[in-house]
Amino acid sequence: MTNTTFSPSACVLLIGNEILSGRTQDKNLSFIGQALARIGIPLMEARVIPDIHAVIIDTLNECRHKYDYVFTTGGIGPTHDDITTVAVAAALDLPVIRHPEADRTLRDYYGAKANAARMKMADVPDGAELIANPLSMAPGYRIENVFVLAGVPAIMQAMMDAIIPQLRQGTPILSRTLRTDLREGELAAGLNEIQNRYADISIGSYPFFTHDKLGVNLVLRGIDTEQLDNAANAVEALIKSLDGEVQRLDD
Amino acid sequence: MTNTTFSPSACVLLIGNEILSGRTQDKNLSFIGQALARIGIPLMEARVIPDIHAVIIDTLNECRHKYDYVFTTGGIGPTHDDITTVAVAAALDLPVIRHPEADRTLRDYYGAKANAARMKMADVPDGAELIANPLSMAPGYRIENVFVLAGVPAIMQAMMDAIIPQLRQGTPILSRTLRTDLREGELAAGLNEIQNRYADISIGSYPFFTHDKLGVNLVLRGIDTEQLDNAANAVEALIKSLDGEVQRLDD
Repeated sequence: MTNTTFSPSACVLLIGNEILSGRTQDKNLSFIGQALARIGIPLMEARVIPDIHAVIIDTLNECRHKYDYVFTTGGIGPTHDDITTVAVAAALDLPVIRHPEADRTLRDYYGAKANAARMKMADVPDGAELIANPLSMAPGYRIENVFVLAGVPAIMQAMMDAIIPQLRQGTPILSRTLRTDLREGELAAGLNEIQNRYADISIGSYPFFTHDKLGVNLVLRGIDTEQLDNAANAVEALIKSLDGEVQRLDD
Repeated sequence: MTNTTFSPSACVLLIGNEILSGRTQDKNLSFIGQALARIGIPLMEARVIPDIHAVIIDTLNECRHKYDYVFTTGGIGPTHDDITTVAVAAALDLPVIRHPEADRTLRDYYGAKANAARMKMADVPDGAELIANPLSMAPGYRIENVFVLAGVPAIMQAMMDAIIPQLRQGTPILSRTLRTDLREGELAAGLNEIQNRYADISIGSYPFFTHDKLGVNLVLRGIDTEQLDNAANAVEALIKSLDGEVQRLDD
């Protein structure tokens, strides 16, 4: 590649029994994956883990050493099953403290309705920097390379938007998407040849089945615009050579 | 607990760059989690990993020794980025063979349109038992305690339905859900007391924010009907004592 590239790596930990039981459909992973890709931080792994103290500790300790950034979602609310902060602090061998600014914010917000459970949301591992929650005030926080975010999607998204400028950005990952009515099995040999020719471009093939259509979305990803466009043009030529329809989708 | 209980553990590996990049919203995890919970197999972990040979091998080898069952989704199609079978075989130190029955099925299905890419979908690790794909014929398979399933949700779901009877079922995990217009912070102290009283029941508290309503879903899970109902009744009494509305949702 001609560009100098820098790609910090990231991992997401979705913490919550309700995702594993299937009761809750996670919507946070795709938002975080897209937000990070835009700033050149490829998400390399995600784990969904239960609200179990030892599991959170072990998983976080493995992942925070393996990746440049770890983002957790869930478990920072007021109820007994919100154990993320205590576990994160234990993983980092830090005491849990009541953060003075968070304490003030929550007292102002709740007024006479402040109680022990609600004020628990002002607790953070010692040394954490707060991440504002403009929706319901209980903050997230950053400690070392770990970002502890809410599980409620709207709140998580606001927090994610707030921390993007703090991250060491990599070379943005660009993409091109082509949609065709051909089948994967018809495209496979030609795609393989194009993939071999463009080793720095990742070509993904994703069949779709909608109520009235069958086909494939071909997604090319890379950091070099020229190579990306050349590879996308090669895919388009392949589709046309097989008498397929081709549509460029906005990226 | 008075019942004799048996809980095989399970892990899901969602294999695919497109889930990590955020391009594709996974829909398989919640389906698998629910299907397993119904037959008493708690899903203890899920990992989303990229289409990288070494990562699939390492992750599978860690998880297949840690859990009774591992279910993978994705990466068994005809294109160059479908590398799950080669990686699974490498993880188990088995050769990849062309499965005779799958070979026949795919030749019959594709007829004159059979080609090398499509026939690759008849390849499995030596010793694998096929899992039928009633939609597009390319099978999944079981090898040891690993179930290799398609990534396309409709196909994955048909495969999952087919293998449920093969699994060693545990004690079904039952649940009760109560919805209230109270806030988590109002309920937290009382919920904590109920959780301490019913140690074998897991009580989850999930706030919701819809366009016109705020509130909390309280989900109680356990294997003993009587304990579960007693705990649910205690939660209902708590809500009423706080002048909240309560609604029992079907489980």
